[in-house]
This record gives sequence, C-alpha cells and structure tokens, in this order.
Amino acid sequence: MNPESFAAGERRVSPAYVRQGCEARRAHEHLIRLLLEQGKCPEDGWDESTLELFLHELAVMDSNNFLGNCGVGEREGRVASALVARRHYRFIHGIGRSGDISAVQPKAAGSSLLNKITNSLVLNVIKLAGVHSVASCFVVPMATGMSLTLCFLTLRHKRPKAKYIIWPRIDQKSCFKSMVTAGFEPVVIENVLEGDELRTDLKAVEAKIQELGPEHILCLHSTTACFAPRVPDRLEELAVICANYDIPHVVNNAYGLQSSKCMHLIQQGARVGRIDAFVQSLDKNFMVPVGGAIIAGFNEPFIQDISKMYPGRASASPSLDVLITLLSLGCSGYRKLLKERKEMFVYLSTQLKKLAEAHNERLLQTPHNPISLAMTLKTIDGHHDKAVTQLGSMLFTRQVSGARAVPLGNVQTVSGHTFRGFMSHADNYPCAYLNAAAAIGMKMQDVDLFIKRLDKCLNIVRKEQTRASVVSGADRNKAEDADIEEMALKLDDVLGDVGQGPAL
Amino acid sequence: MNPESFAAGERRVSPAYVRQGCEARRAHEHLIRLLLEQGKCPEDGWDESTLELFLHELAVMDSNNFLGNCGVGEREGRVASALVARRHYRFIHGIGRSGDISAVQPKAAGSSLLNKITNSLVLNVIKLAGVHSVASCFVVPMATGMSLTLCFLTLRHKRPKAKYIIWPRIDQKSCFKSMVTAGFEPVVIENVLEGDELRTDLKAVEAKIQELGPEHILCLHSTTACFAPRVPDRLEELAVICANYDIPHVVNNAYGLQSSKCMHLIQQGARVGRIDAFVQSLDKNFMVPVGGAIIAGFNEPFIQDISKMYPGRASASPSLDVLITLLSLGCSGYRKLLKERKEMFVYLSTQLKKLAEAHNERLLQTPHNPISLAMTLKTIDGHHDKAVTQLGSMLFTRQVSGARAVPLGNVQTVSGHTFRGFMSHADNYPCAYLNAAAAIGMKMQDVDLFIKRLDKCLNIVRKEQTRASVVSGADRNKAEDADIEEMALKLDDVLGDVGQGPAL
Amino acid sequence: MNPESFAAGERRVSPAYVRQGCEARRAHEHLIRLLLEQGKCPEDGWDESTLELFLHELAVMDSNNFLGNCGVGEREGRVASALVARRHYRFIHGIGRSGDISAVQPKAAGSSLLNKITNSLVLNVIKLAGVHSVASCFVVPMATGMSLTLCFLTLRHKRPKAKYIIWPRIDQKSCFKSMVTAGFEPVVIENVLEGDELRTDLKAVEAKIQELGPEHILCLHSTTACFAPRVPDRLEELAVICANYDIPHVVNNAYGLQSSKCMHLIQQGARVGRIDAFVQSLDKNFMVPVGGAIIAGFNEPFIQDISKMYPGRASASPSLDVLITLLSLGCSGYRKLLKERKEMFVYLSTQLKKLAEAHNERLLQTPHNPISLAMTLKTIDGHHDKAVTQLGSMLFTRQVSGARAVPLGNVQTVSGHTFRGFMSHADNYPCAYLNAAAAIGMKMQDVDLFIKRLDKCLNIVRKEQTRASVVSGADRNKAEDADIEEMALKLDDVLGDVGQGPAL
Amino acid sequence: MNPESFAAGERRVSPAYVRQGCEARRAHEHLIRLLLEQGKCPEDGWDESTLELFLHELAVMDSNNFLGNCGVGEREGRVASALVARRHYRFIHGIGRSGDISAVQPKAAGSSLLNKITNSLVLNVIKLAGVHSVASCFVVPMATGMSLTLCFLTLRHKRPKAKYIIWPRIDQKSCFKSMVTAGFEPVVIENVLEGDELRTDLKAVEAKIQELGPEHILCLHSTTACFAPRVPDRLEELAVICANYDIPHVVNNAYGLQSSKCMHLIQQGARVGRIDAFVQSLDKNFMVPVGGAIIAGFNEPFIQDISKMYPGRASASPSLDVLITLLSLGCSGYRKLLKERKEMFVYLSTQLKKLAEAHNERLLQTPHNPISLAMTLKTIDGHHDKAVTQLGSMLFTRQVSGARAVPLGNVQTVSGHTFRGFMSHADNYPCAYLNAAAAIGMKMQDVDLFIKRLDKCLNIVRKEQTRASVVSGADRNKAEDADIEEMALKLDDVLGDVGQGPAL
Repeated sequence: MNPESFAAGERRVSPAYVRQGCEARRAHEHLIRLLLEQGKCPEDGWDESTLELFLHELAVMDSNNFLGNCGVGEREGRVASALVARRHYRFIHGIGRSGDISAVQPKAAGSSLLNKITNSLVLNVIKLAGVHSVASCFVVPMATGMSLTLCFLTLRHKRPKAKYIIWPRIDQKSCFKSMVTAGFEPVVIENVLEGDELRTDLKAVEAKIQELGPEHILCLHSTTACFAPRVPDRLEELAVICANYDIPHVVNNAYGLQSSKCMHLIQQGARVGRIDAFVQSLDKNFMVPVGGAIIAGFNEPFIQDISKMYPGRASASPSLDVLITLLSLGCSGYRKLLKERKEMFVYLSTQLKKLAEAHNERLLQTPHNPISLAMTLKTIDGHHDKAVTQLGSMLFTRQVSGARAVPLGNVQTVSGHTFRGFMSHADNYPCAYLNAAAAIGMKMQDVDLFIKRLDKCLNIVRKEQTRASVVSGADRNKAEDADIEEMALKLDDVLGDVGQGPAL
Repeated sequence: MNPESFAAGERRVSPAYVRQGCEARRAHEHLIRLLLEQGKCPEDGWDESTLELFLHELAVMDSNNFLGNCGVGEREGRVASALVARRHYRFIHGIGRSGDISAVQPKAAGSSLLNKITNSLVLNVIKLAGVHSVASCFVVPMATGMSLTLCFLTLRHKRPKAKYIIWPRIDQKSCFKSMVTAGFEPVVIENVLEGDELRTDLKAVEAKIQELGPEHILCLHSTTACFAPRVPDRLEELAVICANYDIPHVVNNAYGLQSSKCMHLIQQGARVGRIDAFVQSLDKNFMVPVGGAIIAGFNEPFIQDISKMYPGRASASPSLDVLITLLSLGCSGYRKLLKERKEMFVYLSTQLKKLAEAHNERLLQTPHNPISLAMTLKTIDGHHDKAVTQLGSMLFTRQVSGARAVPLGNVQTVSGHTFRGFMSHADNYPCAYLNAAAAIGMKMQDVDLFIKRLDKCLNIVRKEQTRASVVSGADRNKAEDADIEEMALKLDDVLGDVGQGPAL
Repeated sequence: MNPESFAAGERRVSPAYVRQGCEARRAHEHLIRLLLEQGKCPEDGWDESTLELFLHELAVMDSNNFLGNCGVGEREGRVASALVARRHYRFIHGIGRSGDISAVQPKAAGSSLLNKITNSLVLNVIKLAGVHSVASCFVVPMATGMSLTLCFLTLRHKRPKAKYIIWPRIDQKSCFKSMVTAGFEPVVIENVLEGDELRTDLKAVEAKIQELGPEHILCLHSTTACFAPRVPDRLEELAVICANYDIPHVVNNAYGLQSSKCMHLIQQGARVGRIDAFVQSLDKNFMVPVGGAIIAGFNEPFIQDISKMYPGRASASPSLDVLITLLSLGCSGYRKLLKERKEMFVYLSTQLKKLAEAHNERLLQTPHNPISLAMTLKTIDGHHDKAVTQLGSMLFTRQVSGARAVPLGNVQTVSGHTFRGFMSHADNYPCAYLNAAAAIGMKMQDVDLFIKRLDKCLNIVRKEQTRASVVSGADRNKAEDADIEEMALKLDDVLGDVGQGPAL
Repeated sequence: MNPESFAAGERRVSPAYVRQGCEARRAHEHLIRLLLEQGKCPEDGWDESTLELFLHELAVMDSNNFLGNCGVGEREGRVASALVARRHYRFIHGIGRSGDISAVQPKAAGSSLLNKITNSLVLNVIKLAGVHSVASCFVVPMATGMSLTLCFLTLRHKRPKAKYIIWPRIDQKSCFKSMVTAGFEPVVIENVLEGDELRTDLKAVEAKIQELGPEHILCLHSTTACFAPRVPDRLEELAVICANYDIPHVVNNAYGLQSSKCMHLIQQGARVGRIDAFVQSLDKNFMVPVGGAIIAGFNEPFIQDISKMYPGRASASPSLDVLITLLSLGCSGYRKLLKERKEMFVYLSTQLKKLAEAHNERLLQTPHNPISLAMTLKTIDGHHDKAVTQLGSMLFTRQVSGARAVPLGNVQTVSGHTFRGFMSHADNYPCAYLNAAAAIGMKMQDVDLFIKRLDKCLNIVRKEQTRASVVSGADRNKAEDADIEEMALKLDDVLGDVGQGPAL
C-alpha cells in the first residue's frame, strides 16, 4: 500500500488506528531492509507474516507477476496449475542464466534477489558454524554427489592431464559415483585401524601421489562426516600434502556443517594447507527437503568458476527452502539446533553404551566421530549369517529409520570397483556392528524409542537363536510362525510407544 | 519494501531490473489504491497475487501482527494453531465492536478496513444487480434466517405494541422460525392459485391488517426467490399497502440478488411504496460458504440501527470470503455469472419440458418465477403413496442434489403452527411435482446429468409400479431384490456419467 | 487409497516398502477412528498430517465434493473462488439445517460429522476445565453477546409474562445490549464494595425479584470473568436464589473457561442451585479468531431448545477453527496452556505490584478475580482531568494492547440506560486505576514489555505534570513539542524492545 | 477413514448420508486406482480435491510422516519450517538413492511411488505428443543444459577414445556449455542459408565425422526447437548419418515437446536412423517452474544407464510440479494447450506480418520453424549502431518479455570459443531482426499487447532517428530529455494497455 492508499484507508476508518497499523508495518519493512542491506541471517527468526510479506514483495518483481506483462518468448514463467504457482510463492523463473547459475535474470529481478540473498545468508551461517575464513559459496539445486561431480568437472579444465582422484575410502555409493560420473578414476586409499577407529592413511596417500605423479591427479577428495567407526579424514595433514604437491583438494562435508568439529577441521585445513572447495548437503544440515547442496571455498574466483560451469538455469526451490528456514530460525534458532544436537549426541552415546553392556556388547570407541556411533553385534553375529541383516529389517519394520546393521564380509561392486567389507569402510573390520547417529533435529524421544525397540529386537533375535540352536534347524516352521506373530505385534508396539492404545 | 530496501536490492542485482520490478509493483499498488479510494468492485477481477498482497497489507495493520506488540487484555488475537491463523490470513480480531458490528476496532485497523471495504463493495454490487437506489448495507456473519430475526428485533424497539408479523406463506422453515425466534406471532396469509402459479393474496393481506390493527403489526415479511409454483410476492402492491398503513416492510430476498427480476421488484417496491430492509444470503448469491447474509435498505439510519442492535463483535470470515470472491471476479466476472445463470434457466426449462412431455407430465407454467421450475408427477403419484418421496431418494442416491420431490398431503408442524400441504406453499396444490432450480454457478453438465438421471429414475419407478400392480403386492421380495440391484448399479451410473469407467 | 491401489503401488515400487507405508497409514486412521468412536479430545495433539487427512476425508463426504454430483437446487455449495474453497478445506455447506443448528444435512455428511465431533470435543474440554456435570453444549457461530441473546429469546417462549432480566452490573456493552436486543429490560443491580473488590449485592438481587415478581423476570444474568476490581459474581448464592424463586439463570462465562476458579463457580452453582445455560467465547478461551461461542448447560433438552431456536444454517468456520485447534493441542496441550496462564497471572501480579509501589501506587487487592488485575492511578489522576486517558493512549501508541486506563467520573448511556462511573462497574469507585489481565496464551515477554513500557509512560506523564504545574499552563507549546518528540521516539522504543536496532 | 471410522460416523450422523459420502469417496479412490494401475495421464483432469487426497495418501507413506517413527540416521526427512514442509506436501526425502535417481527409497515409499508414477505419466504424454515409439524416460531435477551434460558423461564411459561432439550451430549458451562442462570439445558446424532459413549443413557434418574419425566423436548433438530464422535440424538425415557411422545421437529438444513438428522429427529420426536420447525442458513444455528436464530415449537400458549415472538423491520438486500439472490438466487439457498454441502461432504470424509490412519490414519466411518467428529490422538498423539493441530495451521496459532484437555483427566468446554474429546462429546473417515466439500458454492478449507496443516503439525509434539525422548529433540533450519523458510515460502505457486508468 502506498501513501495514497493509507490516506484513503484513514478516511474509511479512524486515522489514528490506520496510522498505528502503518507504523507497525514499518517494523516489518525494517527487518527486510536490514536483511537486504547486510545480507546476514537475522539474529532472531522472523515470524511468518514478515516472511510471507518479503517473499510476496520479491515475487511481484518477477515479470511473470507483472500485471501488464506480455510474453513472446519461449520461457515466460507461465504456470498451468494454480497449486504449483502457489507452492512456489509464484517464483517461476528459477535461478541463474544460461551459463552461470549465479547470474542475474532480466525477467526475474525478484528471483535473482532471492538467489543472491540466500547465498549471502548461507555464507554467513557457514562462518557462524565455524569456517570463519570462507570466501564464497552458492546453493546449487543438486544433492551432494552431483555437486561434487560439478567441482571435478570444473577442475578438469584446469588440469588437462589429470585422470585420477585420490580418495580415502568411505563406503557410500554416491560420493564414489560422483568421481566416476565426472569421468575420473577413483584411487581408493584404505583406512588404517587405530583402536576402534578407521582413520586416514596419510602415508599411503602421499605414496600414491608420488606413484601416479601429481599432474595426473585431478584432486584429493576427502570426507568429514561419516559413519563410525570411520572418523573424519585428517584434513589438516591432507591439506598440507595437497599444498606441497600443488594438488587441488575437495572436501565432502556432507552433513558436517552441523558439527563444530568437522567445521573446525575445514577451517584448520584451509589455514595450514590447501582446500579448494567443500561441499555440504542442504537437507542434512538445514532440515529442508532433499535436493540442494552448498559449494563453498576460500578463493572466490574458483567458486565462481564452478558456478559458471553449471550450464543453464536451475531450480530455485532448494534456495527458497533454505531461505525460508534460515529466516524462520534466525541465527539464534540455528545455534539452538546445533547445541541440542550436541546434547543428543551425548545422550545417545550414554544410552547406547548402557544398552550395549546390558547385551554383552560394547560401544565402539570413536572419539573423533562427532555424529555417528557404533555398537558391536558380536553376540548375535556368527550364529547364522543373516542374523545381523535380520536385525536391520526388524528395526526397519518397527519404524526405526536410519539405523545401519553392518555385517562382516559384504562384497559389492560399484561402477566396476569391488569393495570388500562394503559398508564398513574397510576390507576386514574386526566385528559386525550397528550404527546410530545424532543428527540435527533429533529429539530425545527418537533416542528413547530407538533404545527401547533395539532392546526388544535384540531380545527376539537372541531368543530365536537359542531356540534355533536347540532344535538345530529341525522345525523352522515354528520359527516362521513366531516371525509372523512378531510382525503382527509390531504395529501395536509402535502405537504403544507413542502413547496410543493398541491398533485393534 | 521501502525505498531503502529497493536501493539495497539494486546493489545486489542489476539496478535496471530491480527498478523494473519496482515499477511493476506500482501496478498492483495502483489497483489497491483505486479500491480504497473508490470503494467499488473493480471492473476486472484481480489476480491472486494482487489479492494476497492486499490481504497481507491489511493483516499487518492488526495488532496481533505487530512485531512489537504486547498484549495484556482478555482478547488479544492470539492464535494457538498456525493452520487456523493462515486460513484466516491472520485476521483474528473479527469485525465490529461491543455494541456495533460496523464499528471500528482500535486493535484491528486492518480488519476494520476489510469490513468497511467489503460493505462498500457489496453495496456497489447490489446496485449493479438492479437495486439502484439502495442506501446502505452490511454483511452480517449469520445466515438469512437469523439476519431476519435481527431485523425484527430492531423493529421491536420502534413498535412496542406490535405482536404480529404478516407473512404470505412460503414453505421454508427458517424464515418462519426467524419470526418465532424474534418473539412474534407469524400471521400466515395463504397464497392464491393463478393458473399454475401461487401468488400473493393482496386482499387477504389488507384485510388481516385491518383486522389486527396496524399498530399491533410489527411488519410485513414478504419473499422474493422461492420454489415454483410459488412465485415472488407482489412486492410493489405490498409496499404500497405498507406505506398506506405505515407498517414496516422486510423482504426476504434469500437468493434473489442473482435474479434481475427479483431485484427489480425490490427497486420498484421501494420506489412506489415502502421497503425498510431486504435480506439476502451471501452463499446463495455469491458462491461462498454458508454463514453470511447482507442486510440492506433505503434508509441509512435504519440500517445502522440494525447494525447497532448486534451485541458484540462477530466473525470476519463471511466478509473475507465475499471480499476475496468479488475482487477475484470483478464486476465483469459477476455479471458473466448472472448472464450464464439466465441462460441455464432457459436451458433447464427447455430440457425439463421435453423430458416431462416424454413421460406424459408437464412443466408447470410459472413465468413469474425466474429461478425455480416444477414438473408435475401425476403419473407416478397415486399408485402408492410413497412413490413421490421414493423418487426423491432415488435422485439423492444418484448424486442429484437440490431436486425436491413434493408429494401431496404432507402435514407438518413448525414451532406450533400446523401447515397442510407442507413444502407446496398451499393447503391443496392440485398435483405432486418435482422442483429444479437454475441458480448461480450452475453448469450445462449439471442440467444434462440431472435430465439423464431423472429420466432413468422415472423409468425405474414406472416399471416397478407396473410390476407391482401386476403381482398385486404378492412377491415384494423381487421388487426389493431389484432395489438392491438398482442400488448396486448406482455408483457405476454416476461414474459413467462423468466419463470414468465402471467402478469395479 | 483402497487395497487395489496399494496392490498397484506394490507392483511399481517394492512391496515391502509400500506395505510399511500402508501400515504407517493405519496409525493415522487409528487416531481418526478413536476420535469418531469416543468423541473425545485426544490426550496428545495430532500432527498436521493426520489433521489434514481427517479434514480431507470429511470434506469428500460433502456433496459439493462428489465427483459425479449434479446440483439443481438453490444452494449447492458451489464456490467461485479457489482461494475461498481452500481456506475452508472445501467445507462449504455450513452447519445445521433450517430450524436447527445442530441438525444433520443430507447434502453434507462430512460437515455434519465435523459439527457433531466438534461439539463432542468441546463438551469434553468443558469437563476437563472443571464443569464435570455439564450435560450438553454446542458451538454457535456468533460471539458471546448474540449467543446470550439467543438464550434469552429461547426463554421468552417459556416465560410469556416476563419483561425483565436481573443483571448484577458489569460495565461491558455487549452483554448489556444482549438483553436489550432480545427485547427485555435489564434491571441493573449495583455491586457492593468489599475491601477493594466489587462483589454481587445478593440482598439487592433478592429484593428486586420480590419487588418485580418472579413471573415477570425472564432470568437472572450473571457474570464470571470480568475486569478487576469487579470479581466473578457469587454464583452459588445466586443459583440458590434462582432455584428458590424458580427463575432461570444464564451465566455469561465469556473468558471464564480458561480459569478453573470460574469453572468451579459454575459447577458449584449447578450443584447447589440452578444454572440453565452458561455461555463462553471461543476466541477468548481457545485462541481462535473472533466469531464463535459455546452455549452449554446441565439439561440437554433445554440446550437443544436453544439450538432449535437458531433459524437456518450457519457458518461452520468457528467450529472448524476450534476443531483444528483442539486436535492440534490435545488435552495435554490445552492443559499446558491453562497452567501457563496461571503462572503468568502470578508473574504479572508480582511485577505489577513492584512497579506500582515504585510509583507510589498500589495493586488493588482482588483475590477473587483470577484473570484481571488493577493498579491504582492516584498519583497521576487529579492533576489534570485527562491524564488517565492520556496514559491509555500512550500505551496504545506504544503497542501495548488490552491495558485499560479507567478514569473516575465517566458517564455513558447505552441503549437508553445511563451508567455513572462507566468502565469501573460502580457509580463511584474510590480511585482511577489501570487494568491488565493474564489471559490464555500470554507470554512472559508480554508481561516484561508491558511493565517496561508502562514504567516509561508513567515517568513521562509524571514529568509533564511537574513541568505543567511549574509553568502553570503557560507555554503549552513546549509540552506539545515534547509530545511530538515523544511520538517520534515511540517506534524506536518498540523496535528496541524486541531486540531490533532503531528504525532509522 | 477405515470401515470402523465410517461405522462410528454413521452412529453420529445419519447412516444414509454417511454411506452416500462413503460411496462418493469411492469415486476419488477409483481415479487413484486407475492411475496407479495404468500409469497413464487421465483423459480428464482431476479436481483439486482428488489431487490433494492422492498427494496426502502418498505422503503418509514416507517415514518422516510415520506417527511412530524414530530416526537415528543422518538423513531423516526432518523439516525445521512448517511452511517448507507444507509447500512440499510433506515429501521431504527427494527421489532416487545413492547411485540411481530412479531407485526406490526404503524410507520413502510414497516419494518413490510419486517418482515412478510421474515418469510413467510423462512417458505417456511424450507418446501423446508424437513420439509413439519412445521406450523410457525419467524426470531429472536439472534444467536442459545440465541434463545434456549428464547424457554426455554417460556416453563417455561407452566411448573412451572420444573427445569431440559434433554440433550444428545454435546460438544459445547453455547447450554449448553443456558439452564443455562434460569435458568435450564442441565441433561447431555452421548452418547453411536456404531462403531466409538457416538449416543443417549435412555435408559438413559428414565431412567432419570423416575428418575426425567416428571413434573420436562422442556423439552428434542436434537441436529441434530454436529461434528463427534457424529451423530445427534435419533430424532424419542426421540420424541416418549417426547410424551409418555408429555414432550416438543426442537431441536437444528443449521446448520441442509442445510442437508436433519437432516431435515428428524425433519419431522419424529414430525410425530411420539413430537417436539415443532426447532431452526436453519441463518448464518450457509443461508450464511449471524452471528446474527440471526429461531425458527420454528408445532404448530402455541406455536411459537407465543415464539415470544410474546421477550420483545420489535429488529433489522431488520438479517431479511433483509436473505430476500436479498433468493430473490437473488431464490429456484433454494438455491437448487443448497444444492446440491453442498452434492457433496462437498462426495468429502471431498474421499480426506480425501485417505490422512488419506497415513498417516497411517483412516477416522472414521460416516455414520449418513451428514456434519462433522473425521480422526484419532493416529500416532502423544502420542509422546508428545501437538502434536495434535500443529497441530491445524499449520493449523490455514496456513489459514485453521474450522478444529478442538481434543486431548484426555481435561477437561473443563462450568458454573459449568465439562466435561471430552471435545470437543469429550464423556468422553473417543478411539482416538484423526481431524474434517472437508462440509458446505454450500464450494468450491472444499477449499477441495483441506485443503488437501494440512494438508498433509504438518502432514509431518512437523512427522519429528519433529522423530527428537525430536532422540535428546530426548536435543537441543530444533533447534526445535524452525525450528519452526520460518516454520512460515516464511507459508505466501509464502499460496500465492503459491492461485497462486500468493512469497510474497517477
């Protein structure tokens, strides 16, 4: 509403009240102005009404929302479904422009501003989370794996002779595939066992560099956040090696932004050695839907090179999600989530340790891993070969999600490379185990339900094993009956857990 | 966004593009300004983005949306559920103030403005619909019946001796109850049969006034829109009688706003005689959810008296609905709906006439009724007493809604008054019949499906009657089996009608 | 999705995962089933996904959402605006039927069910809140005042000779008007001063009944929640008097449902004497938008009589709001809100007491009022006559809402009745004062900001008075300049209070 | 609602009505079942209520919406902002799984089903649009350029020796960059001028293949939809060449899906020769927000290879948008859009031809281009060098979007390759020209406003040129004043065009 509208409003209702309303509006506008001027995540989260006002103001700046627009191009931001238009707050033009995902679109000043502001806020939050010297970053509407691929593709143009990527092993398919997709050959460096932990084999890394010749190596591809008993790579030492041999260094920081330890590693690596880019998931760190990542680095031109490597426009949806989320939370809200996560990690450790000991198992000692934990499954493994995976299924059907039961001896071939002991980051880890992680947004209730259900499942598996060894495979039928019965009870369990009566 | 925000935006993306966006914004603001200045329904409907911008701007003027507000009263517009807040666009304070539903609320300048603008728009549309000399109106969040009650309660204070309300009979419960609830005794004036039509018995009205004495009569309560074969009351003549005897005149114009004929009757009545208030349904005339009405009249102070009679605040929900609807449609959109309704009325008449004749029935001649039609049910009535109501049920289960099968001889007691021939507006209408109406928003598909299904149902009823008369009640079981079979086919019918394959 | 759909889904993705999803769905359905079977507010609140599933399921049962429906009536639930349809979750038919707001609609099974369930939930919550023996209640889409009117109109039919309503004075316009609108003469019983409290004059009530004759009295109209220093009426004693004289008793429990004390009074009154109906606001007690009330009582047929007195259908909007709210909160959530309110009341008392003493004022002793407090304004009153109202305005412009500055000597005429000392519930209360209330949903931040701003305002008023007395009215201009300056600082104050920097 | 819930519902309201509602529900479920069973786009579009029911049903199958779920993984679909959750209909887990974007996710049966169904519907629509023999396709949440890159990256693994991509020139940056980003060297084949049209130089293509050697060529990268006077490549002949030399063939069908001609070319190419994949934009063809593409082909395993090349999960947002859109439109709705586009193309041609002739220009004869048109700008070019680009700016500021004013002699370097005559697809096109396109969703109003504004702008440019040549550059100031004046009038123009009064 412009001054004339307010004046008209004053004539219709009391001037004093309209003026009061108008003043109150200034407070919303003030927040918006601060945001646009400073480009920083506000300390306190915005309420929905400021947020929607802001999004609405931006959206009317896009040509598809101009009242008098006429479109004679091939892409005019027309939308067939009102539901679709609304769910995107009428931002239709996406972000970027042919040839640069960070470029400004003439047809879409609002979307362009949204994109710039989001990147600015995210940069601000990366600093807050511990990487103080980050120079530049951008949100890309692809998940972590494809974003790593984009980094590798960018490096290709700088290192025409390179064929290999040095990669300390981590058993997660998409980061392996990110290298293969980019057209490079991953050189897997096995981890070394230190106590219970699997850690970077620095000597092997350096030896491999010398063997292949630095100029044939595209980059070193290291990892922070990972499942225990693997722990974050020794980033400082790796960064120094990279600096020494003049090899680029790309860090897969998938869900490490939420951990001050992971962020500290990156900050230190960049300080003492070389880190060219670090890539993190939007969804895993900011509790938004899957589909976006942040590519960040310490050298602005290089990060811009990556953004210019993205051919064409891209979805604004992940940027919009993270913008809404950060403005809603504010710095204080995000810090609170980080703090609660740390507390939950401690709580999960304690509870899982207790449970492990009650079942004659133990919690693996993995002090360098700030997010993931592992408890041995020695007692149930060995009886019959599927016991460990069966435990995984049982947890799954009991609506425990994210727990990983890792058996020994898994062999898997990914894009032509065969991994022994797949899932465990090592050819021969000493024992089968179960993973659980304390990630951002986890609640105490998650931990409690998990412990309760895991306890039940371990008891069932144990009971079955005892029975099975007694009847020595004789009447499997009964066991199966028990299985079915067990299945039937499962929903009641789940409902019972959340304080609802039985389902039937 | 204020100028500083735009300046900051220009620094982040290209100034030219931001300026273009900012200019485009002016077009939205321009529409809002025109609305606030002129208080008229825009000729062309607004698009959703202007509409939501406007609602958002209003909402931030309410104290519950002030960023710095602190509330220490008993009613602060707090909302427990975000879903609820959102569905009301954060208008929480309702409309009106203790003692006047049209009063401005200090805590809610935005809601107050919404209320004023809505009433202004609605007044504008009443004129457009044909009552050019209307002086004042307001939306009240009560349906037609209760709104009539409010009018009668207001009149009570002006006519302390009055006990009776003169009411040409119309068989619809809520308008009868509106008088009883207000504490008055309805004096029912039976209609006279002219051809097929039931029309106002003007002599009986005048005779009754003389008999009871004008000062004992609160008002005359007449009706426009009604089910055929009753037709709108002779408003002109009634208005003259009211003027002559100095009796107030309240018109129940329930769904008459959509008909230029009904509106013309009111305009003429007011011109030549006396009409104090006319009340119409929001939902029936504006295609919004049930729950609001408009009280309008030709004398502003009297309409204000009614609005001041409403004790306390009230829901803003019906006002918001009609505001959104009118701004979306614009005058042109609303006129188009009125025009299409007229065309549908002609189409329905033609189709129903054909069908009637094919079944040896006829369409009743009711030229004075512009909305509702009736077709005789002579051939199916009489065979057994429930055939007519059975036809009604059959239509209902076939998802024909709104068709009324009116049998003869219905007797019903409403609030102590016994109506013979209830539903037919007359003690002894000559024949049973079926009603169908062409109301605003009806589509050609409605008519076609109705005719098709009615045809089927009439055939089934006829076939059953033939069979029943042959077997003379002997094996009813078969008939029942047929019933069941018929029920089973019904959904397939419905799905088939709308072009979907059979359900199973 | 029906079993065939799930089977088709299993063929498209893994059967195990679809089955898991299908089982998970059962948990949502289970909650819905419990609700429908038991009609009770769930202990734990539902999450949005269950809630929306439920609303969606209900909505598809209404004929306007039938895929094959054809409508030939005058009211078919058609909606012109998609925005409007969506905000009502496609419930368009409202609640009730001509002649009974609780009746079931053939065209709208879903809306009817919504209505029944809401009333059942609300009844359940009334019990939870302390009136254990309540027999029946219903939500009516009118605010408290009009709902009281409906109760009085219903009683009229049972007491044809009655002209008067006995009403212990409470200075709130809409409850006074509720009686006048219904056509009765309110007989105002002045309160008696006991300490600081204004309490019911039981003797005067009884004397007046005897004077007028019980048969001429429609009912006694008492009040619970009110602004201090008035306190809730002596319900027990009044209920006994009503029982003795066979006079109906209607309680205005506007915002008393949130207070266990008020609810206890009603429970006790009904136990030892007579209470026919008690009426409470939806918005004030359940944090929903203005526009609904609950009419409840101990005798089911009488409550049904009231619901049958409402002529015609009505808006479902308030019912929908309270349904969403209660299902979201659950009993536990609502109890938590009640508990927090009590704590806030204690906190507000303490803080206000401190502040009062610091300013040489005192908190009035009103132990019987569980919600509202009052602090004297002796020191600022008397200097010049407008100081008290000026304080009110200053608080208003500083975005303190709900604080009432009550001067002495206000005279106001409402519907012909002149009230001396209006706003203070008494002709001559000993001093001017300021009200603040701790109502449901109040936050500690509300209290803190209020205290801070009140402190500032009192200082400003005092300073001005000092200055004014010195210059003895000489140069008023300077005072006005100060006023303006003060106004200018106000927004910065407000922004500063909420932790934002200055506005400019 | 399950049967027990319906039974409980029947006890609360009338069984007959609930049963009717329940039957009506079956009609919605029936549509859902057909969709899941057949995987085809429904002939008639669904209404919002069926659509939202479906989405809701799918969403509750994802583990983040399980009531009893406990998450102990690093990615649990938690959402911080309720706004974000809602706008994604609570689908949080994205699509795909590490290593395959089409894989099913154990944690998200609903999202997985959504993904499968969307791909199935899109395949169905590709057939409907003319490529009847398409074998497989999938939606990828990246725009066309990056999707082409993914195709090239996949081919790399099949053709280890390849370095080059043969590419008939089209002046659009992102398709050029798609090859560079994938690490290949684009070999630009200049077009040949045939009449006004720029067409594929088949001989040059074949010669280049022979020169470089087929095994060094990754693929041929051809284009359908493009700006006139370039026309779609000669796909049939190119496909035959590819088959003969055993070279893969990837078609950039950016906005060609909306044109039966482009689709026919693809169908024919695949029939007579070789097409491995064709890639099209979601937003340009389906009127959804920017950010998705469809990769389709005639050989299912190859298309699966591409989908397996995407490392990790991805955003479900583009899939959701196109699903909502197609279900809302139905086949009939989409066909209608295609038909209207063709009509608009004819209308735009006619109007632009008329205008061109009125200004002594002509419409270029480009009968092979079914979407884009070009009109010469001979008369304004040449006077001063910036006249053509100035015309472009003038149209832009007048809210004409998508018109391209193409001057002669533009030189631009993209990723190291220098293009002469950039934007015109040729080193030396004979004249400057202006492009306009009739793309899906264009309205007659777009054409009319465009013609009107273009007419005005041409007149202004001409007038200025006349004046400029007279004053021979003397007082430029006046020209600038005129510019400013002209700018000032622009918004009024725009408002005037859309039937609103002047802005001020």
